Amino acid sequence: MEDKSIPDIVVGRLPLYLRTLQRMAHEGRQVTSSQELGEKLGISAAQIRKDLSQFGEFGKQGTGYRIEFLLDQLCSILHVNRVWDVVVIGAGDVGHALARYQGFANRGFHIAMVFDSDPQKIGQMVGEYTVQDIANLVPVVQAAGIRIAMLAVPAQQAQAVTEQLVQAGVKAILNYAPINLTVPTGIQVQDIDPVIHLQRMSFYLE
Amino acid sequence: MEDKSIPDIVVGRLPLYLRTLQRMAHEGRQVTSSQELGEKLGISAAQIRKDLSQFGEFGKQGTGYRIEFLLDQLCSILHVNRVWDVVVIGAGDVGHALARYQGFANRGFHIAMVFDSDPQKIGQMVGEYTVQDIANLVPVVQAAGIRIAMLAVPAQQAQAVTEQLVQAGVKAILNYAPINLTVPTGIQVQDIDPVIHLQRMSFYLE
Repeated sequence: MEDKSIPDIVVGRLPLYLRTLQRMAHEGRQVTSSQELGEKLGISAAQIRKDLSQFGEFGKQGTGYRIEFLLDQLCSILHVNRVWDVVVIGAGDVGHALARYQGFANRGFHIAMVFDSDPQKIGQMVGEYTVQDIANLVPVVQAAGIRIAMLAVPAQQAQAVTEQLVQAGVKAILNYAPINLTVPTGIQVQDIDPVIHLQRMSFYLE
Repeated sequence: MEDKSIPDIVVGRLPLYLRTLQRMAHEGRQVTSSQELGEKLGISAAQIRKDLSQFGEFGKQGTGYRIEFLLDQLCSILHVNRVWDVVVIGAGDVGHALARYQGFANRGFHIAMVFDSDPQKIGQMVGEYTVQDIANLVPVVQAAGIRIAMLAVPAQQAQAVTEQLVQAGVKAILNYAPINLTVPTGIQVQDIDPVIHLQRMSFYLE
């Protein structure tokens, strides 16, 4: 069903549709419309119809979208109709927050292990995880077949750890370190840096 | 110098240029090029030249960009040639991580205060901050003239707290709660939800 030629900017909106639909389903709702989704997301109804039409016919003219059906389709398109194991690197404040975050459940991801390089942290518990020694990262992650990592190490260590993750077979990295990682073709990186978002907003402030 | 008609997608790239240039300056570099910036960021050199040309003439053909000059200009455009006080709402794991995060310094933002609604947390220290009672949010934030908030409360409370923030005069909200906030025109929201980024990447995984 999915088509890899879908523009990345469209792919980037699908998780927002999914999150909104999951909330509606949770509230017991059964049907929605591109108008309602658009109002909740600040995206035009026309854009939403156009985005969704790239993947098939999800709604009928005038009757809207069946939420459960659209949810299933979006989960399938985004490959979250399964649960992905994720490795967290870095057991500092951000790693702690990630390891204890309740928001991954039912959204396609499960933290499988946590690593750090600090002898004081290795062996300690972070949430429900025992912190493992980063010296074992490559063989352990490789053996577990993990494809997704969340990188929460200091900026100076982030590139070196990234190279280990790539070596271990990781294909997607959510980067919390405030630097631009260099990765081979075929490895995806998404960055989470609060300052980038704050600066995008301060542009508009007087 | 700035022009509010600049497309938001261009505005969104400027903080990435700024972060990369700050790192180069930190490494003692003096000159760069759109080619080098492009390689570091995975953005075409032509796009970078086009983005920067919207704000004026920053580089000379063939000689590249003077890093310090471009840094100053970008800081001015993004309004981070000053320091903005920011309020953190929520003293849980994410609020903790934000309050102790070292990455705000020299990038235009300073956490001024932290609020929570939990009597167990009010009065406790989080990083260098004493957690304040959210019951006092509106008058305290208003009196301090704070325009930017980071919202790290549970999803169920996020919309109600947002309305208080707007009442207090906040104009920009960095939202860590996994819901879409509804705000009046003129209030900006940026969302940080790791699952949105993870799902954007899992689309491309087999």
